[in-house]
Amino acid sequence: MSLSTGLGMATANSRGEIIEVYYPQPELNPEDSQHRILSAAAGIAGDTSGFGEIADLQIQPLLDELRNAGLEATASLLGSVSGGDKTLVYCVEELEQAPASIPAAFLKLHLLSHRLVKPHGANLTGLFGVLKNLAWTDDGAIDLDDLPARQIAARKQGRVLDVQSVDKFPKMTDYIVPRGVRIADTARVRLGAYIGEGTTVMHEGFVNFNAGTLGTAMIEGRISAGVVVGKNSDLGGGCSTMGTLSGGGTTIISVGENCLIGANAGIGFPLADGCIVEAGLYVTGGTKVNVLDAKGEVIETVKAGSLSERKNLLFRRNSLTGTVEAVPTRTSISLNEELHSHN
Amino acid sequence: MSLSTGLGMATANSRGEIIEVYYPQPELNPEDSQHRILSAAAGIAGDTSGFGEIADLQIQPLLDELRNAGLEATASLLGSVSGGDKTLVYCVEELEQAPASIPAAFLKLHLLSHRLVKPHGANLTGLFGVLKNLAWTDDGAIDLDDLPARQIAARKQGRVLDVQSVDKFPKMTDYIVPRGVRIADTARVRLGAYIGEGTTVMHEGFVNFNAGTLGTAMIEGRISAGVVVGKNSDLGGGCSTMGTLSGGGTTIISVGENCLIGANAGIGFPLADGCIVEAGLYVTGGTKVNVLDAKGEVIETVKAGSLSERKNLLFRRNSLTGTVEAVPTRTSISLNEELHSHN
Amino acid sequence: MSLSTGLGMATANSRGEIIEVYYPQPELNPEDSQHRILSAAAGIAGDTSGFGEIADLQIQPLLDELRNAGLEATASLLGSVSGGDKTLVYCVEELEQAPASIPAAFLKLHLLSHRLVKPHGANLTGLFGVLKNLAWTDDGAIDLDDLPARQIAARKQGRVLDVQSVDKFPKMTDYIVPRGVRIADTARVRLGAYIGEGTTVMHEGFVNFNAGTLGTAMIEGRISAGVVVGKNSDLGGGCSTMGTLSGGGTTIISVGENCLIGANAGIGFPLADGCIVEAGLYVTGGTKVNVLDAKGEVIETVKAGSLSERKNLLFRRNSLTGTVEAVPTRTSISLNEELHSHN
Repeated sequence: MSLSTGLGMATANSRGEIIEVYYPQPELNPEDSQHRILSAAAGIAGDTSGFGEIADLQIQPLLDELRNAGLEATASLLGSVSGGDKTLVYCVEELEQAPASIPAAFLKLHLLSHRLVKPHGANLTGLFGVLKNLAWTDDGAIDLDDLPARQIAARKQGRVLDVQSVDKFPKMTDYIVPRGVRIADTARVRLGAYIGEGTTVMHEGFVNFNAGTLGTAMIEGRISAGVVVGKNSDLGGGCSTMGTLSGGGTTIISVGENCLIGANAGIGFPLADGCIVEAGLYVTGGTKVNVLDAKGEVIETVKAGSLSERKNLLFRRNSLTGTVEAVPTRTSISLNEELHSHN
Repeated sequence: MSLSTGLGMATANSRGEIIEVYYPQPELNPEDSQHRILSAAAGIAGDTSGFGEIADLQIQPLLDELRNAGLEATASLLGSVSGGDKTLVYCVEELEQAPASIPAAFLKLHLLSHRLVKPHGANLTGLFGVLKNLAWTDDGAIDLDDLPARQIAARKQGRVLDVQSVDKFPKMTDYIVPRGVRIADTARVRLGAYIGEGTTVMHEGFVNFNAGTLGTAMIEGRISAGVVVGKNSDLGGGCSTMGTLSGGGTTIISVGENCLIGANAGIGFPLADGCIVEAGLYVTGGTKVNVLDAKGEVIETVKAGSLSERKNLLFRRNSLTGTVEAVPTRTSISLNEELHSHN
Repeated sequence: MSLSTGLGMATANSRGEIIEVYYPQPELNPEDSQHRILSAAAGIAGDTSGFGEIADLQIQPLLDELRNAGLEATASLLGSVSGGDKTLVYCVEELEQAPASIPAAFLKLHLLSHRLVKPHGANLTGLFGVLKNLAWTDDGAIDLDDLPARQIAARKQGRVLDVQSVDKFPKMTDYIVPRGVRIADTARVRLGAYIGEGTTVMHEGFVNFNAGTLGTAMIEGRISAGVVVGKNSDLGGGCSTMGTLSGGGTTIISVGENCLIGANAGIGFPLADGCIVEAGLYVTGGTKVNVLDAKGEVIETVKAGSLSERKNLLFRRNSLTGTVEAVPTRTSISLNEELHSHN
C-alpha cells in the first residue's frame, strides 16, 4: 500500500463545494513528521485516504510547527499557497484504492503528470463518476451552473470569459510543466498524462490521462487513454493508437522503443520494439497480414494482433496488390537530435 | 414564417460599426407583449427582419414597462446585459430569410447552438458575405484594422493580446455552453454548431456551423458544415465527413444512428443507421464496393453512394486483396455509458 | 548580401536575459538614414548582424533626431513601442547568415510571417539551438525556471496563468496577422509561417515555420516545415505533407498550383501543378504506382517520387484491386470563391 499526499489550493463553486484542486508539489510516501503535522492540521487520520481543509487561522501556528520540526521546504510551500482566495486542503490517497473524492482524483492525476507514478500505476476506477464536468476558463475552473452569469458579467467589462474547455479534465500545463518537454499546443495534453523527459508533443499530438511516453519521443499523433510509448519512438502526424474507452477494442495498446508510426497511420494492437507502420496504413488487431521473409517470400498469413511481440517489423500495404504485409525492417529509427536536445 | 428575436450586447469597431453580437437568451416565436415592447424600444417594426439599438437613457423606463407588463424574466435579462460598455440591440429575424446584417447572422448562429433550430432549419444564404473577418481575442472581437495598435499597447502593459482566432465565426462556448455536453478543446466548435445533449466532443473532434449531433454521441472526428449525426453514433479520432463548402462533393453528408466511423476513416456519402466504417478506410460516394452476403459471397459491385440507405453494413478494405467490401454487421455499436452519463 | 532590421520590444527572464522579441514593423534593406540613426543609438556597427539595446533616456533625443531627419513614421513607431516595461532593441541581421542570437532568430521568423522573405529565403541554420524553450502565456513569454512561482501567484489571485504552449516558437498571430487571411485556430500556425493573401487555414490546418502558401489557398491539412504550397490549391482536412525534420524523408516536399490533396490523404514527394490525391490515400516517394493513360491502360509502373514533375495527375487506390494508380485528371480544381473573397 502506497500513500500519496498533497497540499493543495482548491476551487469551490457558488455552493461552496470543491470542484478542482491544484497541488504544486504532490508527494509519494512523504516524510513522516511532515505528514503527521499536516494530517493533524487538516483533521484527518493520515493513514488512509481522506482530505481536510486547513483554515486561515491555522496557517501561522502551522508554519511555526513546521519550522520547529526543521521542515523549512514544507513551510515555504505552505507560505506560498496560503493567503489567497483559495481553500487550502491536505489530501491523502492510497494509490491502490479507487478515488472517492474530487481532491483524491486530482491528486492522482497530478502524480502521473509529475512523473511520480507511471500510467497504470494508480487505481483510477470510477474516475469519470467522481470528476465534475466544468468550464475551464482564464478565471479558473467554473461550475457550469455558475457560468452564464459570469459570462455576461465579463462582457459588460469589455472582455470575454474565455471558456477554453468544457470537460472533466483540465489541461496539464496549467498544473505542471515537467522538466525537458515541449508541448506546442497545450490544449491537447490532459492532466494525468505522463510526458517523459525529452518528449516533444507537436501541435497535432495528443496525450490522454493515464498514458504517455517513457523517455525521449516525438509525438505528432494521438496517445489514447492507457497507451504507453517506449523511448526513442516517433508517432507521425495524425497517427492513431486505438483506445479502450470508446469505439475501440479491449486490448490495451502500447508502442515499444525505437518505433515509428507514420503520419495518418494507426494501430489497434501493441507494437513491439523497432517496428514501423508506414504512413497512412491502419493496422487493427484483426487485420490479416502476410508476413514476408528477407527475400520477400510469404512465410505465413496471420492476424496482426498475433505479431504484438515480434520486433523490427515494417508494416506496409503493397501498393500494387493491396495486401498488408509485414517485412523485416532494414532501417532503424533515429530521432532528430536537434529537436530534442534543447528541450 | 417563423420569427426569432434576441436582446444582445454588440461590439463595435473604432468606426462605430457593429462587428459582433452576443445574445444570452435568443428566442423563437417570442411572447407577444414582450416582443412588442422591445421592438418599440429599438424603433423597429417587429414583424419582419430588422434590428435597432436601445440607448442607455431608455433602460430605466423600459425596465419599468416590462415589469408593469409582468415580464419579470425579460426585465431581469435587460438588467443584466445593460450598463456595461457594450451597445444594446434588439434583433428580429425571419428564419426563412437570408441574413442581411451582422446582428441577424449572429442571431441565427445563436439559435442553432441554443438548440432552438436544427441544422438546415434556418436560411443562411450569403452568410460568408455578411460576417466580417475578425480577430477573436481575450479582449473580445477586434476589427483587424484596429488590431496592430491594440497588440502594441498590450505588450507595453506586460501582457499579450491573445489572438485566438482570425475568422468570421467565433467559438461557440464563448456564447453558450448547451446542457449536457463536454467539449475538450472549445477552439474546435464554431458558433452555429448544434451539439446534442449527451454529446462529448474530444480534442480531435470538430463541429462546423449548421452541423452537429442530434443526441448522445462521441465525436473525435470532424463534422463538416451541413453534416448531421444521429444519436448513439461514434466518430473515431481524426475521421472525416466530407463537406460541401470546399474541395468535397455536392451531396450533403449525414451519419445515421448507432453508427461507428473508425479512427482516421472518412465518408463521402450519407451513412445509414447501424453502419460501421473500419479504422483508416475512406469511402467516397464514387468508391466501387463489393457487397457481400453473410456467407462472404459477392452479391454485387456498386458505387458506395448507392448504399446510402442500406442499414447495418460494415465497410472494410480486405487486407489481403485490397478490395473495399460492404458486409452485414455482426456487432452493434454501444457507447461507453460512463463517458456520457455524467456530462 | 541582404540586411534585415527591426525595432523590437524584448522580454527578459528573471536573470535579465532576453528570451523573446516582438518587432511590429521589421524591414528588409531599410532606408539608409533611419538605419544609421538607429544603429548608432543601439551602439552597433549596422553593416553586419548584431543587436543592441536602446535605453529609456535615449528615447527623447532619438525621437528628435528621427524627426529632424524627416523620418516621421519611424519616430511614430519608436513612440508606440517605448515607455512600457519591455526592453527596446534594434537588431540587424544578414539574411544569408545563420542566426546567432535570440533577437536575430525572432527577426527572421518575423520576416517570413510579414511576407518580406519567402520560405527558404533566409538562413535558419541552427535555429533550434538558438531559441529557448519557453512557456507562452497570457502574461507573455515566461522562462520555464520562472514559471512555477508565477503559476502559484496567479492562482492566489483567483485566476489561472494560462500556459498555452511550451515551445521554442510562439504562435504567429500574437505577432502579426498578415492581410487577407483567416486562421480559425491560431494555435496551429507558428511564427515563421508564410501565409499568402487569400489563404484560409481551417481548424485542422497547420503551418510550421519556413513553410506556407504563396496565394489563395484552403488549408485544412498540415504544412510541415519547409513545405511550400502554390496558389489556388486545397489541402483537405487532416491531410499530411511529409516533413524533413523528423520521421520523414530528406526530399523537401512542395505542392504545386491548382492541386487538391483529399481529406486524410498525404504525400511524401513534391506534387506538380494540377494534381489530385484522393481522400484517404497516402502516397510516399517510394510508393509504386501504375500510371494509366486516358483509356485506363497501364503505361508504366514507377515510384511516385519520379512523378514529381508530371502535371494533372489524379492519384487513387483502385478500390477493387488495391493498386495505387495515377490517371490523367478530368476535372480541374476550383476554390469556393465565397470562402476566400471576403478575407
